[in-house]
Order: sequence, then C-alpha cells, then structure tokens
Amino acid sequence: MSDAVADTPLGIICGGGSVPLAVADAVSQHGRKVVLLPLIGWADEKAVAQYPHHWVHLGQFGRLCRLARNAGCRDLVFIGTLIRPSPWKCRLDWLTIRFLPQILGSFRGGDDHLLSGIGRLFESQGFLLVGAHEVAPEILVAQGPVGSRTPGARDLEDIARGLALIAAVGPFDVGQAAIVANGHVIALEATEGTDQMLARVAELRRNGRLRAPPGVGVLVKAPKPTQDRRFDLPAVGPPTVELAAKAGLAGVAILAGGAVIAEPQRVAKLADEAGIFVVGVPGTPS
Amino acid sequence: MSDAVADTPLGIICGGGSVPLAVADAVSQHGRKVVLLPLIGWADEKAVAQYPHHWVHLGQFGRLCRLARNAGCRDLVFIGTLIRPSPWKCRLDWLTIRFLPQILGSFRGGDDHLLSGIGRLFESQGFLLVGAHEVAPEILVAQGPVGSRTPGARDLEDIARGLALIAAVGPFDVGQAAIVANGHVIALEATEGTDQMLARVAELRRNGRLRAPPGVGVLVKAPKPTQDRRFDLPAVGPPTVELAAKAGLAGVAILAGGAVIAEPQRVAKLADEAGIFVVGVPGTPS
Repeated sequence: MSDAVADTPLGIICGGGSVPLAVADAVSQHGRKVVLLPLIGWADEKAVAQYPHHWVHLGQFGRLCRLARNAGCRDLVFIGTLIRPSPWKCRLDWLTIRFLPQILGSFRGGDDHLLSGIGRLFESQGFLLVGAHEVAPEILVAQGPVGSRTPGARDLEDIARGLALIAAVGPFDVGQAAIVANGHVIALEATEGTDQMLARVAELRRNGRLRAPPGVGVLVKAPKPTQDRRFDLPAVGPPTVELAAKAGLAGVAILAGGAVIAEPQRVAKLADEAGIFVVGVPGTPS
Repeated sequence: MSDAVADTPLGIICGGGSVPLAVADAVSQHGRKVVLLPLIGWADEKAVAQYPHHWVHLGQFGRLCRLARNAGCRDLVFIGTLIRPSPWKCRLDWLTIRFLPQILGSFRGGDDHLLSGIGRLFESQGFLLVGAHEVAPEILVAQGPVGSRTPGARDLEDIARGLALIAAVGPFDVGQAAIVANGHVIALEATEGTDQMLARVAELRRNGRLRAPPGVGVLVKAPKPTQDRRFDLPAVGPPTVELAAKAGLAGVAILAGGAVIAEPQRVAKLADEAGIFVVGVPGTPS
C-alpha cells in the first residue's frame, strides 16, 4: 500500500476519458481535497472545470512539478487515456529536457519500463506517485456481473484460457487483453490496443475466417502480472461493450480489482441491450 | 522421422501458392514419382498441369482417398495455403459425412487439434500423412541470409525476444509470428495471419502509434513448439517481404528448418531492393 499523506491535496494528472473525474469524485467524497492537472489535448474541458485545475502540456514536467508543489500536493495520481501522443501535442520545458536522456532510455523496452522510469523521475522531485486504485478503490471492477447477463460454462472455459494466456505473456510486457472463442485464441493485444483488436475480430467474423458462430467468444482483460498499476490500469467502458457486441462476442470478462470501469451504469445498460455479459472474475492478480 | 515407402508414388494434396510445386519438383528430382491432388479453388491450374493430377473439392474425403489409392499412393503430403475455406467451396462426399462428427469435434480447440484429428482420419483409411519437410527438406529455410543484408545487433536482440515470446505462447496453440521493435512487442499473430498482422503494423506506423522509427523492428516467424509440421509449415514468400517493407521493418527472421520459403530467388531480390534482411536463424525447434 501507499504511504500517501491524506491531509495534503491529491494532484490528479488527467488524461482523456471519464475515469479521471470518477477518481476525483471518489477522493472528494472521502473528504480529501483534489487539484486537477489536466493534459491539454486529452482531458475533458467541461469535466475538469468542476475542480480547481491547472492545464499543462505533455512534456512540461517542470511546470507540472511547480504547479503541484504550489498547490501543496505531495501525492500525485496519473489516470486517463493517452492515445497517440504526437510531437505537436508536446511542449518540452527545461526540466523535461534535463531528464530527456533518462526518459528516452526508458523508451527501450515495453510500456512498464517507460512508466517505471517516469515514476522515478517524479520521486526525484519529491513527489509520490500513487495508484488511482489506492486512493479510490471503488472505481475498480468488482467480482460479479455488471449487467444482468452472466457467462455460461463454455464462456467460463474461454475466460480461464484467456487469463492463463495473459499471465503467460506477462513477462514479455505485452498483452493486457485477449479474445478466446471455443477454446481457440482469436486475438492477442499488443500495441494496437483493445478497441482495434475488437474491430479486427469483427472483420474476421465478416470475412468468414472465424470458425466460432456469433455469440461465442469472450474478451478477457487483465493487467499484466508485471504491470505497475500506478500508471496503466486497464479500463473498460461503453465503447468496449459496443465493439464487443459488433465483434459478435458472448461477453467481456475483466479481472476483478485489476481494471477500472468507466460509467458502470451505462456499461450495464449497453450490455443488456446488446445481450452480452460484462463480468468481474476472480484471478490471482499480483 | 517418417517411415514413408519411397517406391510408391507420393500423393501431394495441393493448396494455394507456389510451395506445392516446389515440393513436387524436389521429390521428382530425388527420383520419386508424384501424383498431385490439387484442391479446386486454391491450387494453381497451370502449375499442376506439369504432373499427373486429379482435382478434388475440399470436403471430398472419399474421392481423395479413392484417387490416391488408385494411383498406388500410400504416403500423402498436404501442402499450400488454404485461406478462408468457405462453405461454397466445399463439397461433402459420403466418407466426409460419415466422419463429420469427428471432424467437427476437432474444431473445438486450436488449429493443431483440428489438424491432428484429420491426420488420424487419413490413417484410418490406410494412408500415412508425411511432412513436406521430410520428403523435400531443401524447401526449408536454411540458416543464414537469403538476400545480401544481415541483421545488426539490435535486430538480433529483437529476434531473440520474438523467438522466446513465440515459445511462451506455444502451449496456447497460437502465434507463429510476432513483430518486435527495440525490445518492444508490437504485434502477436493469432487468427488474422501474418499478412494482416504486417498490414496492422504499417497502419500503426502511419498513425504515429509506433515509437520505433522506420527501419527498426523485425518480423519473427517460427513454428509453435506444439505444432504438427505435417500440416502447417509456416511459409515466407514475396508478399511477406513486400508487406514487411511497407511496415517499415528492418527485416524478417525465420527459424531455420521451421518454415518454407516460396520462390527464394525472388524473395532475395525483393529484400535487396527494399533494403531489408531475410534471414534463417538458429533456435531450438521441437
């Protein structure tokens, strides 16, 4: 567990999506002040307006540290999506440039390597990076169904196979999700991300290259065993459910406690409408 | 090794691509007669005309057995691509229908399960299914470069990581190929096949979602440790080289002895023109 100091405000570095605000809401309800540090180009403008906030560009490490320090923060959370960081969305300030050799060094190897390196950089500036799941555990997927459907016996077998596969590829710093249908591994996620993997399976279905009939197959999502959850909690939200339905899957299984659900009520509604299950499953998270 | 009887003609069930003819040529040069059993809709009409041949539809298991038996064959090789078998390309004859429960049973689980089941079906009819690599070992990728380029130190690291990853996912009956760039696993093949995986990486490159610059990254191809090579030898040919170049990779590495090269001279020429390497690498094949 973290040794976060609860009497200082929590700084939340916000990427895209609805999860950063869900974290801010949960932490506020616990009685702790929050200061948002939304990333320009990713964070939602209207949503962040509900809390004290200071916009920063990706790459303004010095500005970020100064703003957080001035706001009295010691603990920082980084949460939200950060798809396709492009050079023109980045502005490198002096502190970033000073640490650039270490940052670029971290780029060799997978995501975990990069993100742990960034964690150490914040620590070198006197901050403590904590996990969103530590300060707002209620945002995590709980065990059991999210909508009204539940997986059947064949689905449970597919889920077990997917979880085992994700565990096996964990040491390679790849694969937070897989799609398994009738015991057959259909797709394994790497750089493309879950949404594009689901779109690929929808395409394989249209092509007739999937043997399993529609309504068979499960998207299984779980954090890599080696993953540093302070940075990269897998998230499931309404788009996941819509794409899973388009791919003709029976449902979505998420390792309980290992991922965040964005907008759980909407997820449940969409899953019920599409006739698929969304379920938190037990496992052996690290 | 196979206990193939060399004084009987070899029956070659031909799928698509140029590899079936390369096998026929090699076996003929060894002094053994061949009889081709080309699959309607996949095998190349002009190419098969060079040898005694009898066309069959996919699904005509009874007809196939009768033709092979009449031609005096005991040993059969199945080789060539069989992409997207559609119901309208299949014609089920009586023997196929009789064995349909077993065939459908084999569909549960991965490719290996299905193919081993089909192997046992041929054995039940008195045939011996042998591997193309057993009767024509010269079609296999040899150790060393195919064109004039060779992998550098970083490429060799990526190749080692790719081979280790493919070995790790082998028990899940998935993944004969992976793409690794700068130590980072970019893509892992499942149902989509190597060509589509390469196209996906080209797209990730266009999107700016790949961190590695063009000219970094290797396609690594190796048979799954559990794979029955009598059915599913991975193949590399001119399209592989063209797609690898489009994906901005440094080259293609194939486990020596573990895959077939279709049209090696053209592969070498295309690789040199694109400035990428194609290399057979040592490993620990099963």
